[in-house]
Amino acid sequence: MTHPFDVAILGAGSAGYACALRAAQLGLSVALIDDTPLGGTCLHRGCIPTKAWLQAAKVRRTVAKAASFGIGATLGDTDPAALLAYTDGVVGQLHRGLEGLIAQRGITVIRERGTLVADDRGPGIETGATVHRARAVVLATGAAPVTLGLPVDGARILTSADALRLTALPERAVVLGGGVIGVEFASLWADLGVHVTLVEAMDRLVPTEEPGHSRILTRALKGRGVDVRLGAPVDTAEATDDGVSVQIGGETVAADALLVAVGRRPATGDLGLEGAGVAVSDSGHVVVDGQLQTTLKGVFAAGDLVAGPQLAHRGYAHGLFLAERIAHLQGRSGERPTLPRDAGIPRVTYSSPQLASVGLTADQAGPDAEVVDYHLTGNGRAQILRAPGDRETGVVRLVRRPGGEIVGVHLVGDDVAELIGEAALLVGWQATPDDVAGIVHAHPTLGEAIAEANWALAGRPLHMHG
Amino acid sequence: MTHPFDVAILGAGSAGYACALRAAQLGLSVALIDDTPLGGTCLHRGCIPTKAWLQAAKVRRTVAKAASFGIGATLGDTDPAALLAYTDGVVGQLHRGLEGLIAQRGITVIRERGTLVADDRGPGIETGATVHRARAVVLATGAAPVTLGLPVDGARILTSADALRLTALPERAVVLGGGVIGVEFASLWADLGVHVTLVEAMDRLVPTEEPGHSRILTRALKGRGVDVRLGAPVDTAEATDDGVSVQIGGETVAADALLVAVGRRPATGDLGLEGAGVAVSDSGHVVVDGQLQTTLKGVFAAGDLVAGPQLAHRGYAHGLFLAERIAHLQGRSGERPTLPRDAGIPRVTYSSPQLASVGLTADQAGPDAEVVDYHLTGNGRAQILRAPGDRETGVVRLVRRPGGEIVGVHLVGDDVAELIGEAALLVGWQATPDDVAGIVHAHPTLGEAIAEANWALAGRPLHMHG
Repeated sequence: MTHPFDVAILGAGSAGYACALRAAQLGLSVALIDDTPLGGTCLHRGCIPTKAWLQAAKVRRTVAKAASFGIGATLGDTDPAALLAYTDGVVGQLHRGLEGLIAQRGITVIRERGTLVADDRGPGIETGATVHRARAVVLATGAAPVTLGLPVDGARILTSADALRLTALPERAVVLGGGVIGVEFASLWADLGVHVTLVEAMDRLVPTEEPGHSRILTRALKGRGVDVRLGAPVDTAEATDDGVSVQIGGETVAADALLVAVGRRPATGDLGLEGAGVAVSDSGHVVVDGQLQTTLKGVFAAGDLVAGPQLAHRGYAHGLFLAERIAHLQGRSGERPTLPRDAGIPRVTYSSPQLASVGLTADQAGPDAEVVDYHLTGNGRAQILRAPGDRETGVVRLVRRPGGEIVGVHLVGDDVAELIGEAALLVGWQATPDDVAGIVHAHPTLGEAIAEANWALAGRPLHMHG
Repeated sequence: MTHPFDVAILGAGSAGYACALRAAQLGLSVALIDDTPLGGTCLHRGCIPTKAWLQAAKVRRTVAKAASFGIGATLGDTDPAALLAYTDGVVGQLHRGLEGLIAQRGITVIRERGTLVADDRGPGIETGATVHRARAVVLATGAAPVTLGLPVDGARILTSADALRLTALPERAVVLGGGVIGVEFASLWADLGVHVTLVEAMDRLVPTEEPGHSRILTRALKGRGVDVRLGAPVDTAEATDDGVSVQIGGETVAADALLVAVGRRPATGDLGLEGAGVAVSDSGHVVVDGQLQTTLKGVFAAGDLVAGPQLAHRGYAHGLFLAERIAHLQGRSGERPTLPRDAGIPRVTYSSPQLASVGLTADQAGPDAEVVDYHLTGNGRAQILRAPGDRETGVVRLVRRPGGEIVGVHLVGDDVAELIGEAALLVGWQATPDDVAGIVHAHPTLGEAIAEANWALAGRPLHMHG
């Protein structure tokens, strides 16, 4: 019998590779097992390439608006091959960096498909005929698109991964699902000249965000020509000779492509979980305790396998936590780590406008919560970034407990994503408006809007009409 | 005798108008005296229009690089009239908002030139034949460009205010001064197609920033064709028949325009300060105590009149502080305010690349300080924003006291300005790396670079090669 690893990690996405890096740093011997490239969904077919497509879309929008800034420019054709070369370039560089880092830390990478085993010799990961035993096992296989039984073919009926590989843009597209993935694609395709119909079964887009911010996003998308249909169920869809035919609430909509973006489900199939004694809930999530241990001692789960927001940085946080937790349990680290609460994890949607939020919405904070909305019409930087003629619609919302700390920050507007760093500190550190009032914000920055909203929350609005 | 105001403010720029707004909010009767439009230098001929020109320059750079993102675009001529319409539109909207706010708060605006008077009836501001008495006076007249005796004519030899009003761009320009104003104009003019020679007498650009960041900026400007001359004194300059002739270290450089951006000096002339008993230092600054009171009791100074960094948001902070201080002294507010320390005030330079910093440089923090540099090559968002083919040069530097709190954050790179909000909280709240390590940063954001640098500072680098 070979000497077991201190930790074997099944899945090399955000949660898995972060766990591997930190575990190796803490002196543990690590096996990282995946038959797909290091980096997982986020790097190869999720966050990173999607945001690169969104950046290309923003470039096209900038070119289209250039004249209003005094810059002469003529829009030409979009070159999907060059666009893919750019997005592949970004992914490739980050992937090479990650491969180098994993190698440098002495992590054993096993590029095979693995399943969990657990017997009287303890847990392990089986790949083919080999069982890699480990003192602890981390499950981090992520999630995969839900397709609702629609006949996804990768050409006409697409998942988001397919949509990122298109070598020709559809003229007309239906996007099914108004969550983060759906609105990002609707936004970027609209900016790239695609006629988009965006269909959401619920009564608003991005339903976990502030309702007012959903409305601002909806108006902005409609203003760029997106046909937004809310409360609209999709009955069926099928590929036709020249595209797709989609039944939306009794109406037939013809398009060149249908993107199915109705959610992602934990990827627990064929992992041998139940046989090994790892319980899976009705929703398909791995059941864990408050320290991410599954129902089988020594076996942990991280990232999208665990019920909660599906976010790459939550996966990182889980992976880091588990590396530190396992090192602690194995007597390799004196420090007992704390699992970050889901409520303090920021969320960003890179549509145009962007949405970013952290903490509780006004509704979640309850009827006594104090809420301030600061509109970016008063913010100098926002006015500079806004193309002349476009309407300013950005808002910063702060939510605090009555007389107490800030529990929620909700942002919508162009380029607001980077403000979420400050926002996460405010919520994470349970700052009160008085704590923040003493911090000088640079002028002119979008971040001043947080200071203005904060002053208003402290009862002393500065640049705000009363 | 008319009833005196609670406070009379001389100068309606950032410091003065902020003081007026807060003082009125606290129930004081306020006179705001200026013969130039509300908003002062920053709004009308400083930060705001400069950043708008920089945004237009960024739009042109984006158009020029569009093909590398897969977006077909042809660059046309720059239309200075449209560009001015855009910058005037931004300024005009913010100006109207400010006028409305000042009116709404019941502030008495006196649109005349004022001088300080002080006699046995107390202090006041004299405008023409009227003396506006006040229980407290705030001096907030700002600063004006230093011209070194060069024959500024507004057409060939320019201050930054002139440069913002150009209706035709020079083909070749010399920028004299490598501080914030000089490098912002060199950067934006280069992006708008002007051949720029940038001359700095000292041995590096932006000499208050980290030396390594000055080098990164210098290389970036040179890479865009700017002829950067360091340690180069300008001897003389004169307008010629077809432009300007500038003597730089013995060499004659011909250009169409010369921008003189060698600094700004407190605007204390003709204010009647010395006659009233308000001392002015050799550097031209108004002498104040730790509560911004001048040598004359009841007379205060704010903003660029007070020695320290010349920043609009420092002016706001001074103005807010003085309103609260005066209300406290006059028994109208129980709270005793604290003057923000200059060391905690963030600084942003909106050149390409941008620079932003807060707190101490590594040198200022001393030989025992711990310093981490995180390069943005490892940051996904930075790689998405970078035009393919461009080199990534961005860096996040964190500086901490040995084993202690973070005392400096220094950023250089494209679009890093908004990270300064989080950075100012870290420095202002004297956060330690352990305080920050528990905060989850969103992926993919530039702000993750702060988290990465912080982990390295805490001894646990994640995405960093060792």
